[in-house]
Amino acid sequence: MIGHKFMGKAHSHAYRDLPYFFDTSLTPVLQTIAGRDEKGVEAAARKMGWASYDTDWRSLIERDDIDLIDIVTPNHVHAEMAIAAAEAGKHVLCEKPLAMTVEQAKRMVEAVKKAGVVHMVCHNYRYAPAVQFAKKLIDEGRLGKIYHIRAQYLQDWIMDPTFPLVWRLRKEVTGSGALGDIAAHILDLSRFLLGEFKEVVGMMETFIKERPLGEMSGGLSASVKNGQMGEVNVDDASAFLARFENGAIGVFEATRFAGGNRNGNRFEINGEKGSIRWDMENMNNLQVYLVDDEPGLQGFRTINCTEEHHPYAGAYWPAGHIIGYEHTFINLMAELMNGIAKGSSPSPNFEDGLKNQMVLEAVERSVQTGKWVSVSS
Amino acid sequence: MIGHKFMGKAHSHAYRDLPYFFDTSLTPVLQTIAGRDEKGVEAAARKMGWASYDTDWRSLIERDDIDLIDIVTPNHVHAEMAIAAAEAGKHVLCEKPLAMTVEQAKRMVEAVKKAGVVHMVCHNYRYAPAVQFAKKLIDEGRLGKIYHIRAQYLQDWIMDPTFPLVWRLRKEVTGSGALGDIAAHILDLSRFLLGEFKEVVGMMETFIKERPLGEMSGGLSASVKNGQMGEVNVDDASAFLARFENGAIGVFEATRFAGGNRNGNRFEINGEKGSIRWDMENMNNLQVYLVDDEPGLQGFRTINCTEEHHPYAGAYWPAGHIIGYEHTFINLMAELMNGIAKGSSPSPNFEDGLKNQMVLEAVERSVQTGKWVSVSS
Amino acid sequence: MIGHKFMGKAHSHAYRDLPYFFDTSLTPVLQTIAGRDEKGVEAAARKMGWASYDTDWRSLIERDDIDLIDIVTPNHVHAEMAIAAAEAGKHVLCEKPLAMTVEQAKRMVEAVKKAGVVHMVCHNYRYAPAVQFAKKLIDEGRLGKIYHIRAQYLQDWIMDPTFPLVWRLRKEVTGSGALGDIAAHILDLSRFLLGEFKEVVGMMETFIKERPLGEMSGGLSASVKNGQMGEVNVDDASAFLARFENGAIGVFEATRFAGGNRNGNRFEINGEKGSIRWDMENMNNLQVYLVDDEPGLQGFRTINCTEEHHPYAGAYWPAGHIIGYEHTFINLMAELMNGIAKGSSPSPNFEDGLKNQMVLEAVERSVQTGKWVSVSS
Amino acid sequence: MIGHKFMGKAHSHAYRDLPYFFDTSLTPVLQTIAGRDEKGVEAAARKMGWASYDTDWRSLIERDDIDLIDIVTPNHVHAEMAIAAAEAGKHVLCEKPLAMTVEQAKRMVEAVKKAGVVHMVCHNYRYAPAVQFAKKLIDEGRLGKIYHIRAQYLQDWIMDPTFPLVWRLRKEVTGSGALGDIAAHILDLSRFLLGEFKEVVGMMETFIKERPLGEMSGGLSASVKNGQMGEVNVDDASAFLARFENGAIGVFEATRFAGGNRNGNRFEINGEKGSIRWDMENMNNLQVYLVDDEPGLQGFRTINCTEEHHPYAGAYWPAGHIIGYEHTFINLMAELMNGIAKGSSPSPNFEDGLKNQMVLEAVERSVQTGKWVSVSS
Repeated sequence: MIGHKFMGKAHSHAYRDLPYFFDTSLTPVLQTIAGRDEKGVEAAARKMGWASYDTDWRSLIERDDIDLIDIVTPNHVHAEMAIAAAEAGKHVLCEKPLAMTVEQAKRMVEAVKKAGVVHMVCHNYRYAPAVQFAKKLIDEGRLGKIYHIRAQYLQDWIMDPTFPLVWRLRKEVTGSGALGDIAAHILDLSRFLLGEFKEVVGMMETFIKERPLGEMSGGLSASVKNGQMGEVNVDDASAFLARFENGAIGVFEATRFAGGNRNGNRFEINGEKGSIRWDMENMNNLQVYLVDDEPGLQGFRTINCTEEHHPYAGAYWPAGHIIGYEHTFINLMAELMNGIAKGSSPSPNFEDGLKNQMVLEAVERSVQTGKWVSVSS
Repeated sequence: MIGHKFMGKAHSHAYRDLPYFFDTSLTPVLQTIAGRDEKGVEAAARKMGWASYDTDWRSLIERDDIDLIDIVTPNHVHAEMAIAAAEAGKHVLCEKPLAMTVEQAKRMVEAVKKAGVVHMVCHNYRYAPAVQFAKKLIDEGRLGKIYHIRAQYLQDWIMDPTFPLVWRLRKEVTGSGALGDIAAHILDLSRFLLGEFKEVVGMMETFIKERPLGEMSGGLSASVKNGQMGEVNVDDASAFLARFENGAIGVFEATRFAGGNRNGNRFEINGEKGSIRWDMENMNNLQVYLVDDEPGLQGFRTINCTEEHHPYAGAYWPAGHIIGYEHTFINLMAELMNGIAKGSSPSPNFEDGLKNQMVLEAVERSVQTGKWVSVSS
Repeated sequence: MIGHKFMGKAHSHAYRDLPYFFDTSLTPVLQTIAGRDEKGVEAAARKMGWASYDTDWRSLIERDDIDLIDIVTPNHVHAEMAIAAAEAGKHVLCEKPLAMTVEQAKRMVEAVKKAGVVHMVCHNYRYAPAVQFAKKLIDEGRLGKIYHIRAQYLQDWIMDPTFPLVWRLRKEVTGSGALGDIAAHILDLSRFLLGEFKEVVGMMETFIKERPLGEMSGGLSASVKNGQMGEVNVDDASAFLARFENGAIGVFEATRFAGGNRNGNRFEINGEKGSIRWDMENMNNLQVYLVDDEPGLQGFRTINCTEEHHPYAGAYWPAGHIIGYEHTFINLMAELMNGIAKGSSPSPNFEDGLKNQMVLEAVERSVQTGKWVSVSS
Repeated sequence: MIGHKFMGKAHSHAYRDLPYFFDTSLTPVLQTIAGRDEKGVEAAARKMGWASYDTDWRSLIERDDIDLIDIVTPNHVHAEMAIAAAEAGKHVLCEKPLAMTVEQAKRMVEAVKKAGVVHMVCHNYRYAPAVQFAKKLIDEGRLGKIYHIRAQYLQDWIMDPTFPLVWRLRKEVTGSGALGDIAAHILDLSRFLLGEFKEVVGMMETFIKERPLGEMSGGLSASVKNGQMGEVNVDDASAFLARFENGAIGVFEATRFAGGNRNGNRFEINGEKGSIRWDMENMNNLQVYLVDDEPGLQGFRTINCTEEHHPYAGAYWPAGHIIGYEHTFINLMAELMNGIAKGSSPSPNFEDGLKNQMVLEAVERSVQTGKWVSVSS
């Protein structure tokens, strides 16, 4: 694994916990974790249970006893690392968004295809049991033809203007702000559930345009003093309208300025025969409305997707005993292990990552031009 | 009153009930109700408590014992009636949307201003106590600078493809579909709470393009046989992005194809210091989040706006004893009565109706051009 | 009508509003309202639309142009008034609880039966459309054999120890505290939905044992000065366990000390085939769970009982346009009018009031003895 | 660890996961798991990561390389095992309820005290961050004097009459039914939050009195054929009223016949200055109402207890990224490890288990006598 912060913690835990709940064809072994900060990566290795650590990520790629490279670094180095890993014949799991640009993402797809390695992008929210169950209902035609999706990813962690200029707020490291970081998630959920985007028109806004530099800004501000300010050059909020290939329409919004929404990742989908609602902050529940329910008895059902009838849920606890955020990673890793065993790349893979990137880029282009933009163009 | 269907029922009831709950300066007297269908209007007059009825709306305007004309007809005749009423020196209450076009709305505003009569548009949802309380919080600065509004008006009453081609589905009678009928409401709520729109970009969709003609289609299909189909020439769904004069951004959606949402009129507003959420299907509650609440104790409060501390609520029942849809009209009519007594036109008045129309028209233009459109242009 | 405070307001409004929504066989005419305080009753008559007022309730009973006596006074005079009215051949609607004691209630039942007049007790919550729909589901066997009811009536209006000693806190006027005032409501709902009580064991508590006397205490404290304290001799909270004739078991609680619960009248019923939940603060909704729903799709449905499929709801507004507290009275009054026309006494009538009183008294006895008490004993 | 089914899975996982999230003074090592069924325990050992397995629990107690015995067997053998473990100088963690009787529980307390070993009972729900935060609020006086607790533990897993006679339905193995299995949990939560019980009066009911014997009935039915029925001799449902030493009153209900409630462990507490609500099916949230909130802005706050401000939550993920059922065990095990390091027994320990048992027994006695029973008597 390359990287050892928040996502490193989530991924490492998932690898450790995976064999406890699933009988996958392969079982992960936590060989080496890499990071530039020796002290940090050494502590992370110990805490997270990695057999060793390294300060140079390239060493990992050269080792014979490593089969899978997991990239949990900031976005600007995803492409370089993933391509190098693929070229070395390693399977690759990469954090989202896959890349900084469509062009990078294309090169990444080419690299993994050429190398014939297994690849996935870590859009973990797909793997909430309630979301998987939603997918099952849609695939079975239980909602009929889909008319609408409205999806929001609302957070509030940078509302305080004194919050420092961290790397997620600088375009050169992160690519974009709320768009690539969290809109990318709801966009992936939409592709998973509804299929491909056709065209979009969007809007971006940066509410707080300058923020303090300081220790928390990491590499960005190594040489600056406290009190100095730096420019925020990514979006605090993004919203866009969309049309899908299947005729559905979508309304999307991602923001880090929605006070009281700590991690409000949610969607509602309306089809000819039914509707569903999901909210990450209550991720075990799926709300389902069926048009053909008996008159008088029609209403959204609150389904606690913790039963053996619900995807992945049977691996955990009895009905009504909820699971949490970390289990989305465990479920995804289970698919990854099975994929490696079979030599196929489960969804969401790099091709999904590329398509996601194409939508992100179309939104950005539409913001520049003030017009609808075709996703494939 | 001109018209005697759904809105006629709501307005008539409000006039009757008003003096029971409010000591307004003036008390409404239900003189005459007009409608073309004599049998229908006669029954309505009896049922709703009007002293008399008439089949010619122009008669009402000529009478000396009528001071207020209330227009609850389909949209295509609003302008003609309102202007005639104003010219005859009558005060006017008009159902929303005010007009079919901005041009009509402008003429209506000119007419009421020239005549010096009191005028209101019946955007009743403003008058839910919880919405009025939201306005109070915003005006007091309790939310600080506003960043976001996301508002939806979701219905499902025409999802069945065999539902007939009623007048609300024909452009020449209604102007537009979900846009003018229900987006107009959330747009009014937004103007009420956040101020003026600056620019918009939108999308419209008609999912069911043909519907059966028949008795339920009323005048539209008087001469047709069952089994014949007619074209739906208005939008089933509309969505748009917006920027406000005050710097806030907005995401709006109105649809009649959101299964399970009978009357899902809702919004969330996020500001620098707090957030609020409201949902018409649970209209007595306002959810309020305050950024400055003590750490650890931060969360949306569910406030049942039925206390004497909440606007209009004191007129009704003790705290916790909820009111319903009809009370939004009673509260609005109370302001209208006081407005007539004082000679001023409470908000939302025809100028609000015009501004609303300007946003609706900008959305329609943006749909035609595929670009952002300035509201004032 | 005798009495003109909170309940007078609710009842008068219901009589006025009734003909607007329902075509009942008879239409109420608001003849005379009686109260001892001339100024108060005169104002009430004017405000509420009564044709005249009187300071002696006995005058009403003697009048030929009055057919129905509605008793909305404090509880200690219910029996005297209702019996006098019945003896004078008047139909009677009486506020709950019917009486102070079982003995009184029995005399009241005898009086109305002997006189052959129509009688009802105003347990209005039965007449929420969602509750009526619950009854329909149970009667149709949709829940199967009933196992459980748990019902709570939680309020918080006297939590402040400086709140004065009003009449509802004195046993000689009110009979009991939370028990007779609000437990009586959930008890009536239980009898309505499940049938008769068999035995009970209860608990009562008075948390604040002394309160200030003062103007707000009304007649109780006419001669006292501010600052003086008086004893609270009724229960602030009551709870009891119960067994029903049909084998179900019940858990009941009523309190005025549940902070944040303004009017938390709620119940859940579990049967062999399904469960339902209702909450007065969100009274339009009924939550329904059906055991035989498809596995994986099982969950409580949130049903907004505002459709034509739901009892009484069709009389009001389109689906999703909610009604409120006052409509429970209108629905009840509609049954009363039809009952008078037919010469029958719709439920809840005085016999229901008596059975209710028998349960209340059994609870009180069980509190005194510390043992289970049979309701019929 | 002795036992290897559902609770064995939950405990083993918690030991494994603990060091990932907490820096406890000691780190658990999974030495040996014991069970009578060799094939089953061997598979469990492999799956759950135990170094070895044994078919005789007594062997574990004799080993020098085992310091802690974790008992997750059916209830009828808790006492024997725990006492033997203590006598051998092992620390003991025991599943709830601690014992079959007060007498057993007393002997267990004596044994651990005499041996000077560390002891805990696994009432895991105390260790939900939201519950710990509730405790903190109460201890800080934020709710003031407590008036009420109402707590329910509602399940529905044995509603189907064809569900077999498993060991949890036989008194000789389990002690009691819903009472000892799930009422014991809400009772522990009540003791944790409010203090000691004073007296109780209760009710028990068995709705389905006979069930099929069969394979699923395990040892109970080894020699019987399918189709044979056996008697259910424990309660399907229990309810009781209670008075606490601190003057509060409580209403409790536990049932396995509340359709739609998969794991509905919930409570509401009302105090002089505030109220709280918690529900295990949405275990990350605590609802908090504060009496002194500004008038008009009073309402229950929905607090997602996933912030660093909330007990234990900081060890996991960022705010809004929820945790689940298994984390309650991890938090409890963290305290156990620290307790062993310090030589003290964190709450809930065997003394808590004994007090819990005393309340359970008082409820059972009150059911037999039909009277209130003092808990200490």
